Amino acid sequence: MSLIIHPLPGIPEVRRGDDLAALLLAALARARLVVTAGDVLVVTHKIVSKAEGAVVQLGGDEEQAYRALVLDEAVEVIRRRGDLVIAKTRHGFICANAGVDRSNAAQGTAVLLPRDPDSSAHGIRMAIKASSGVDIAVIISDTFGRPWRRGLTDIAIGLSGMAALLDLKGTVDASGRELHVTEVAVADEIAAAADLVMGKAAAVPAALVRGLEVPAGDGRATDLVRSPEEDLFR
Amino acid sequence: MSLIIHPLPGIPEVRRGDDLAALLLAALARARLVVTAGDVLVVTHKIVSKAEGAVVQLGGDEEQAYRALVLDEAVEVIRRRGDLVIAKTRHGFICANAGVDRSNAAQGTAVLLPRDPDSSAHGIRMAIKASSGVDIAVIISDTFGRPWRRGLTDIAIGLSGMAALLDLKGTVDASGRELHVTEVAVADEIAAAADLVMGKAAAVPAALVRGLEVPAGDGRATDLVRSPEEDLFR
Repeated sequence: MSLIIHPLPGIPEVRRGDDLAALLLAALARARLVVTAGDVLVVTHKIVSKAEGAVVQLGGDEEQAYRALVLDEAVEVIRRRGDLVIAKTRHGFICANAGVDRSNAAQGTAVLLPRDPDSSAHGIRMAIKASSGVDIAVIISDTFGRPWRRGLTDIAIGLSGMAALLDLKGTVDASGRELHVTEVAVADEIAAAADLVMGKAAAVPAALVRGLEVPAGDGRATDLVRSPEEDLFR
Repeated sequence: MSLIIHPLPGIPEVRRGDDLAALLLAALARARLVVTAGDVLVVTHKIVSKAEGAVVQLGGDEEQAYRALVLDEAVEVIRRRGDLVIAKTRHGFICANAGVDRSNAAQGTAVLLPRDPDSSAHGIRMAIKASSGVDIAVIISDTFGRPWRRGLTDIAIGLSGMAALLDLKGTVDASGRELHVTEVAVADEIAAAADLVMGKAAAVPAALVRGLEVPAGDGRATDLVRSPEEDLFR
């Protein structure tokens, strides 16, 4: 089956306390999309954080305030070079500036990661279920860099209504050999796919992914975080 | 515009010397897809390597022969734990087992990465252009792990007819602030998106991605490799 990714444009600037699920449902209606079981709604964390009020005013010396905020949001600094800080967030994610971001934020402010992105995803999912009667999956995405490779890709930092990983253990390939690749980071691949229709400057903060075999399960984004013991690159 | 990803199933087991472009054109015809400017054809490296004969017989003790082959393909071992070797390939990619893979390979054999995946992509692109008159983009994909995050995702190891990265330098966000995120790894996001319709066990080794604003340029997959000087994680 073919996969279709629908951008959801036209969502207005989100402010603290806004009913994000209602804004997403309105965007779906404008795009004439009726949600169906198996759909995955991908929402960039930026509008989730804004609706939840995870926005900080950078008083005084803005650069200095920003750098202090980054260290405040970090539970561990992994690497540092000049102004670049690669840090672990309290969620366990390792990313630049502990996820604190000034792009697509009002002048003089910075946007933090949502406190509990899985819970944010769950809230959106339940609101859509209440309104439409359909239980879809929801992914909250963010834009992360990677070691070794240039350029950024979107990944899943929160999810609800699906498994984060597709476990292929026990499946065999076309020649009957058991697969070495046992876990596919499906939620990250969906977030990356959705980013292709979003664009960073285009103000398309959400997309609906349809036609996927969504891995069933009660996953959370921390399932995608490798434990320090398993990790060779800390 | 919505993005559509069409799986291209039904490609037979590929053997050394097979005309891969012809097999892909036949798969497109079976799927009733007429290629259009702006399309991106994603092909898993496995069938490229097989067509190019980048397959090695593992004689004697198969495990031992495999481990020797991995070290042979590596130009630098980055990390090692037990049987797991994270190595740099001659292309500059850093991945498990230097890209040597035994899944979806005939019993007693291992598949290497193509010698020059950009050139492989270019060859497929030119053959499709010769046959259809349409100049599409081609990406060769492989499945890589990542530091810090569990699960594997597909990335681009070869490409032709597009830029690997989308440079947003100079673009401004909705509030007029210049974007900090300046380079999106679009080719990697396309490879990840295509993997969603391929499946590891399902023998769908190619997909057509349609509806994308493909970044123009004469890119190559090594554009996605971060230089050691820029890299904090070697």
